[in-house]
Amino acid sequence: MSTDNTTETTDASTETETSTGTETEASTEPETNTESKCGASSTTESKCGASSSEPETDSTPKCGGSSDSESSSSGCGGSSSEKEVASTVDDFDADPGQLLAIGLGPGQPEGMTQRARSALFDAEHIVGYTTYVDLLPTEITDDAEEIYDTPMCGEVSRTEEAIDRALAGNDVAIIGSGDPNVYALAGLALEILESKGATASMVDFEVVPGVPAAQSCGARLGAPLVNDTVSISLSDHLTDMPTIESRLHAAAKEGFTITVYNPWSRKRRENFQKCCEILLEHRDPDTPVGIVHGAGREDEEVEIVDLAELEELGESDLIDMTTTLVVGNEETYVWDDRMVTPRGYESKYDY
Amino acid sequence: MSTDNTTETTDASTETETSTGTETEASTEPETNTESKCGASSTTESKCGASSSEPETDSTPKCGGSSDSESSSSGCGGSSSEKEVASTVDDFDADPGQLLAIGLGPGQPEGMTQRARSALFDAEHIVGYTTYVDLLPTEITDDAEEIYDTPMCGEVSRTEEAIDRALAGNDVAIIGSGDPNVYALAGLALEILESKGATASMVDFEVVPGVPAAQSCGARLGAPLVNDTVSISLSDHLTDMPTIESRLHAAAKEGFTITVYNPWSRKRRENFQKCCEILLEHRDPDTPVGIVHGAGREDEEVEIVDLAELEELGESDLIDMTTTLVVGNEETYVWDDRMVTPRGYESKYDY
Repeated sequence: MSTDNTTETTDASTETETSTGTETEASTEPETNTESKCGASSTTESKCGASSSEPETDSTPKCGGSSDSESSSSGCGGSSSEKEVASTVDDFDADPGQLLAIGLGPGQPEGMTQRARSALFDAEHIVGYTTYVDLLPTEITDDAEEIYDTPMCGEVSRTEEAIDRALAGNDVAIIGSGDPNVYALAGLALEILESKGATASMVDFEVVPGVPAAQSCGARLGAPLVNDTVSISLSDHLTDMPTIESRLHAAAKEGFTITVYNPWSRKRRENFQKCCEILLEHRDPDTPVGIVHGAGREDEEVEIVDLAELEELGESDLIDMTTTLVVGNEETYVWDDRMVTPRGYESKYDY
Repeated sequence: MSTDNTTETTDASTETETSTGTETEASTEPETNTESKCGASSTTESKCGASSSEPETDSTPKCGGSSDSESSSSGCGGSSSEKEVASTVDDFDADPGQLLAIGLGPGQPEGMTQRARSALFDAEHIVGYTTYVDLLPTEITDDAEEIYDTPMCGEVSRTEEAIDRALAGNDVAIIGSGDPNVYALAGLALEILESKGATASMVDFEVVPGVPAAQSCGARLGAPLVNDTVSISLSDHLTDMPTIESRLHAAAKEGFTITVYNPWSRKRRENFQKCCEILLEHRDPDTPVGIVHGAGREDEEVEIVDLAELEELGESDLIDMTTTLVVGNEETYVWDDRMVTPRGYESKYDY
């Protein structure tokens, strides 16, 4: 099997958690082992004074506009009243700094682009989910003026905090693994900027792209994705299940390869079961499915199974919130433990 | 508009050319300004002796198995007899080296991951399309023992040459911009390995992922891709047009955002027209469409237009083989010159 722990110690679990929105799911799944990480207490785990001393930050315009932003970090599926935007652009009298949404790629330094690395060195404040902040090289975290991190499911408050810090005059990087455009926070940052009466231009907002989970997991499996492809998340926290099901039908019918993000969690095992049923309606039972669990972590497992075997694996340790699935199309085959999706060259060339 | 030439001198045209298979199209479109680049003469443009001295490489087992591989490099849509696999695994008596398919990301050094960079330094031979080889930092090309590059549309012969060199005992990196799994050569490499009677394990084949064009162009546009998404190429060289049309209908119907690779070329302007018609059947005329032309190059242009305006732009310089399109879904809107596709947070949080 083509795994590459030695050359790339990626962490697709963290990539999955950001680039597939697992943080968001956690907010609806207190029992998925994240309860203790959620809610207002989250920021008490910050690695620097920035969050636990939020009230003080009121008195220093360089550290966010309002302690009310704390209230929004208490939101893990709580009432919306807890999650109202606190400070607006009018609360800041400083010249805004820059706000970058940076994709770390597979999650470890080797998977980061040089542009992301230098942007992180340029940033004064780095804001992110604790797990990703912990993945940053120490030379980057040591170089930062401040680091603000919150545990899982604090993405809305964390993003707002990043924006407040930029509006307060700091150059801020909000980080996530994978790519900021793949089930991640680039859009949320723009939505919150708008809600604060700010603009993207005001903070010279830029997205620094990274390698998404589909690519880092596809690489582990061989060449499963070289033709037209689809990414679908099975999390119904932000997209309703009928829409997800309809998209699965369409993608499976049309010969797309399919990367499935957020395939399984205790609270919605039926989404996974439904996904398997839909795929089997349109694809042969022996269609290859690549399973990448905890990519790059000590518990990484990469397996290629038949579609028919997939559903029964839902209850195994192989498929959980750290897993990404890559479903082959009608032409995908397995050769020498790799998934290969022919692109069509064989129809034009003899080799 | 969020362009970032200063911080990232990417070259999406080259990314598009590899990660969207434009090389392949060129083989069917001699008049698309690539005629002079095609055919056997290609290797005379090599940057080192490796290609122009192909016959000599016969005499040294470290440089490929057979000069017949030249015959396959003459193939730009020519007869299959020109493109038969030359040497097989039995023609080599050396211990095989390693074969890596490396994605350079957006095409310039800043867009490359650190893993790709160190893998390129470790490689003895670097094989790639001339345009990408020219994008490599000189410290990498100077460090390589040999560089074998061919112009556009030599991807089959080039990939075979890379494999022959690995089977002959060299550690070989075959490069492309974007990601090796996105309309690129990872699959072709595995198919040719199989056709030679070799195995992937024999050359310890690995894919080193990179940032695809969808991500680097999406970043330029803001946050257009943060929910379920599809990539479709309009090139009908390797996929027939009825299949492409059917996939466009399905993707447009189901609310996916759509990244369109290879949107236009002189030989198949009707594919682009058909694509615009299909999208308009399912999406409002004012659906935002991001157009990224020659990203990172001097002639880079980033525009966001209404879907209704798209078709008429097909004949403009804005849309050509260096362009990638990002089509919004029903919820995508334009704010402060950025495309924003809400992920659904607004339905759960007040901000």
